[in-house]
Amino acid sequence: MLCVARCVARRPSRMSQRPPARPGDPIDAIETPALVLDLDAFDANLQAMAGATRDPAVRLRPHAKSHKCPDIAKRQLALGAVGVCCQKTDEALAFIEAGVRDVLVTNEVVGPAKLARLAAAAAVARIGVLADTELGVRLAAEAAAQAGTSLDLYVEVDVGAHRCGVAPEAAAPLAQSIAAHASLRFAGLHCYHGGAQHLRSDAEREAAIAAAGAVARRARDDVRARGLDCPVVTGAGTGTFVHERDSGVWNELQPGSYVFMDADYGRNVPGGRDVRFAQALFVLASVMSVPAADRAICDAGLKAFSLDSGLPVVHERAGLQYTKASDEHGVLGVDRDARRVDLGERLLIVPGHCDPTVNLYDWIVGLRHARVECVWPIAARGALA
Amino acid sequence: MLCVARCVARRPSRMSQRPPARPGDPIDAIETPALVLDLDAFDANLQAMAGATRDPAVRLRPHAKSHKCPDIAKRQLALGAVGVCCQKTDEALAFIEAGVRDVLVTNEVVGPAKLARLAAAAAVARIGVLADTELGVRLAAEAAAQAGTSLDLYVEVDVGAHRCGVAPEAAAPLAQSIAAHASLRFAGLHCYHGGAQHLRSDAEREAAIAAAGAVARRARDDVRARGLDCPVVTGAGTGTFVHERDSGVWNELQPGSYVFMDADYGRNVPGGRDVRFAQALFVLASVMSVPAADRAICDAGLKAFSLDSGLPVVHERAGLQYTKASDEHGVLGVDRDARRVDLGERLLIVPGHCDPTVNLYDWIVGLRHARVECVWPIAARGALA
Repeated sequence: MLCVARCVARRPSRMSQRPPARPGDPIDAIETPALVLDLDAFDANLQAMAGATRDPAVRLRPHAKSHKCPDIAKRQLALGAVGVCCQKTDEALAFIEAGVRDVLVTNEVVGPAKLARLAAAAAVARIGVLADTELGVRLAAEAAAQAGTSLDLYVEVDVGAHRCGVAPEAAAPLAQSIAAHASLRFAGLHCYHGGAQHLRSDAEREAAIAAAGAVARRARDDVRARGLDCPVVTGAGTGTFVHERDSGVWNELQPGSYVFMDADYGRNVPGGRDVRFAQALFVLASVMSVPAADRAICDAGLKAFSLDSGLPVVHERAGLQYTKASDEHGVLGVDRDARRVDLGERLLIVPGHCDPTVNLYDWIVGLRHARVECVWPIAARGALA
Repeated sequence: MLCVARCVARRPSRMSQRPPARPGDPIDAIETPALVLDLDAFDANLQAMAGATRDPAVRLRPHAKSHKCPDIAKRQLALGAVGVCCQKTDEALAFIEAGVRDVLVTNEVVGPAKLARLAAAAAVARIGVLADTELGVRLAAEAAAQAGTSLDLYVEVDVGAHRCGVAPEAAAPLAQSIAAHASLRFAGLHCYHGGAQHLRSDAEREAAIAAAGAVARRARDDVRARGLDCPVVTGAGTGTFVHERDSGVWNELQPGSYVFMDADYGRNVPGGRDVRFAQALFVLASVMSVPAADRAICDAGLKAFSLDSGLPVVHERAGLQYTKASDEHGVLGVDRDARRVDLGERLLIVPGHCDPTVNLYDWIVGLRHARVECVWPIAARGALA
């Protein structure tokens, strides 16, 4: 009785949803909408990234914000990743609780309670975090000193994204401040150009990363000129990582989406060096109404897909287009010559943007040969703090 | 030991996030980003809706898809609502598990497993569901017969939304099919015009609902002409409900967003009969970087707001605009004459669209006079099936 009371207090009724399937189920038994992973494509993506980052001089630290799933992180680590990136404190803690021992929070963290949690976790894992102000450095140092641990601090440099980060000339002074704190270790520079990831042509992506690399190089050289070691220059995403890899500046890469891919990445035109990743992530949806010859309605809408990077795309079903979403409905346009759409028909649909779509689900269903092989918890789903 | 094993099996580690605050905490102790509710505004909205639906001839059945929170549903029921609406099977079950005893699923449900769950729940609650095909009717009848229970079936009529639903002339034959099944009860017509809710002028909304009402009336009269009772004509949303209420056709109203409101509803220009609801829902965010005089970055991005109906809006902080979101960052434009933005400063931000934003959070923090009064679980968060 006491035990039940404790469990309930920790996890109130219905805060996690039931898994939509069990291992061994056929695809038709999966309850929809469900997030499904083509495991053959997923495995191939992991292998392709491992192959593309084999040079030990450039480490792979995949971004776990895309999948939020420790089962996936463990597979990345087994194939040579040095650790993972996270964006949020509680996301990092979910991976540490699951046994990951090297996490870089690629974000400024200035809340004292969050820093205290990270500093406490640094007793069992190597933890990195970014700073772009003296105040941020001081708060991190205080938290680590209080916990009796040490945090790796990276200076974030604005290399073109114009989001957070300092100008290159401000990086070295901030690195010196970090190095002056006994509870901190200056770990390097965080140089991520988010805006370059979805430039459509390879020439545009290459040019953007060349410009970002010049900024990153200047900041790194300034740091070294002050007699400080700059162990790591970290950054890159799925859209551009081959350019950072080959730049001679970055020595750590953070791609995340490559494990899944999405419709938006699918619109990038690959360049000569680009690695081709397969679409591995889908939402499995069911048709729940066929009210007209040119229209069908499926059970996956705004709460099943994030629409920020465009509409989802129906996969390998000629003549059907996902044309509009309301909260719980997806409207499908049916071409005149399309095969008839039946009530209950199941559709695989490619999300427009994988990361925030994954964050809508509690479980990811791994499929191989139309059978459920695994059902993995998306343990850091909703880890906002 | 057995008990722990069972709990863990049911609720794996970290699938629910920690509450961002505790009752009694000051607002500054809430971890961000958090979903917060101004309880004075919320209470006023509940009272205003109760006042506007006092006529017993027109029942209020608020839509719980907006809040997904049994604590809110119970307050609506205490003020006279006859039950709640839900959109999804598992959403309905979350409310039934929490004690709600009258739920209308305002959606076609054609999956046999879902219908079986609803039919089983009909042993303890009154459950309605929609149909727009003979097949849907037959599947519901079989599920209820199998469970030894009875389901209320409503025919969905397309009154202008062009989503699901039958044409008005097809409603009466389908109603007859429903009435012919011993395990079903023909409960009425579902006539919801989603597209009318955000028409900006009252004249447009009034005209849209007048047209929808003519369609609904025709369907209802057809049903009656076949000798069937048509107990309920149900529909309406926060944007138009005064028009359905006064139409003489609808006798049940389903508004949902009125408890919270959002930036998109805030753009509707109210008409003479409209009830003014106050903005009660906010995301509390923190500034985590101030990299330039004209730019600040907060910790609430795409995973903290649904952007489908436009960007969120900074509340009562002159000179700050939320201009861009990435997954975990919100970019704020800072006007030249704005008060200085400090690292760690907290901002209340109005979501563009309340329903899918609420679905991103595990908890809603109720505030009164800048102090946390309650922390309610969003029990049906992520209830996709």
